[in-house]
Amino acid sequence: MIKFTIITLFQEALEPYLNTSMMWKAVDKGLAEFEFVNLRDFGLGPHKSVDDTPYGGGDGMLLRCEPVFNAIESVKAKDPAAKVIIPTPVGEIWNQEKAREFADTNIHYIILCPHYEGYDERILSIVDYKISLGKFVLTGGELPALVIIDSIVRLIPGVLGGENSALIESFSDGDNLEYPQYTKPYDFRGMKVPDVLLSGNHGEVDKWREEHSK
Amino acid sequence: MIKFTIITLFQEALEPYLNTSMMWKAVDKGLAEFEFVNLRDFGLGPHKSVDDTPYGGGDGMLLRCEPVFNAIESVKAKDPAAKVIIPTPVGEIWNQEKAREFADTNIHYIILCPHYEGYDERILSIVDYKISLGKFVLTGGELPALVIIDSIVRLIPGVLGGENSALIESFSDGDNLEYPQYTKPYDFRGMKVPDVLLSGNHGEVDKWREEHSK
Repeated sequence: MIKFTIITLFQEALEPYLNTSMMWKAVDKGLAEFEFVNLRDFGLGPHKSVDDTPYGGGDGMLLRCEPVFNAIESVKAKDPAAKVIIPTPVGEIWNQEKAREFADTNIHYIILCPHYEGYDERILSIVDYKISLGKFVLTGGELPALVIIDSIVRLIPGVLGGENSALIESFSDGDNLEYPQYTKPYDFRGMKVPDVLLSGNHGEVDKWREEHSK
Repeated sequence: MIKFTIITLFQEALEPYLNTSMMWKAVDKGLAEFEFVNLRDFGLGPHKSVDDTPYGGGDGMLLRCEPVFNAIESVKAKDPAAKVIIPTPVGEIWNQEKAREFADTNIHYIILCPHYEGYDERILSIVDYKISLGKFVLTGGELPALVIIDSIVRLIPGVLGGENSALIESFSDGDNLEYPQYTKPYDFRGMKVPDVLLSGNHGEVDKWREEHSK
């Protein structure tokens, strides 16, 4: 079974998303497991500090090595085979192919959510996968962690069940996007569904969809 | 002031993230406003249904036009100038440059979160911006909505205050990524901070950082 341990300072902001229907179903069916580790528990000194100022100057605070290594090692002590993911703008760009590769594993992934301005570079020495959602900057790694988890979990066989959608396939070769879809009503404010989709001719429907794929 | 109205079926999963420190600060300082609209309130029939099966066949359920148009129009009735964003895999790829463009506006953005398998194509006729996070598929538009909001709000002057980081600048020309950063301790398990960063020579520090930018 795939497992995700999320190391974060903001469990309360993430947990509700993991309780939404698909995620909850995955857990309920024994297809995935989620766990949180509070980075603050591994903070230093009386204030349980997890960050400090950068050497060489610069704004902001960086995540320190000690709390991060100790938090990760506390998880690895129970499961030495666990792999570490860090969401970072300098990582490999996430895509559907990678989501599928991860979904095909039964690995325990530890996702470290860096926050604020950045992290001490030496933290990368304990990381197995650097993953980037794209060329933009976020407040922290929490949303990327959820994006990575969501995109993986929905691909685990049995999670979506009958909800298996064309969308799931649409990215399977890496580049094809989906075709326009329509549901009732046939005529919405004068905008009508293309007649071919009502024809019952599966060959014609497939042809139309292929021609209109984006 | 920039404002985001999020149309979703899953307010309870998103709201806690908007209460985290940066988002809360932005609201508290009067620099941003967030609002939710429950799509279910605009559902059809006794079950308040918002989706239906696709014409032409296929798995899954598609978001119908009526609830979406009615929800969006209920917001636009109060603010006709509001613009509509839909997160969709076929949209324009989100990046830091776009985040900056949005952060520079005082527009009211309505973010429609499609869920499950997709949406009726005619919904796009009421949409101003189609935005994609990348080539992967998610369960719904909720996480992309939060990613878009987070990346914009942190760029609004005054939101991050003293926390303004090098990262903020690192993407500003669209391509440059950041340099390695280090904080205390100097020696962590034998891994040492590059001495140049302790030299106090700003010219040398800048040179090193430029050479090591990713």
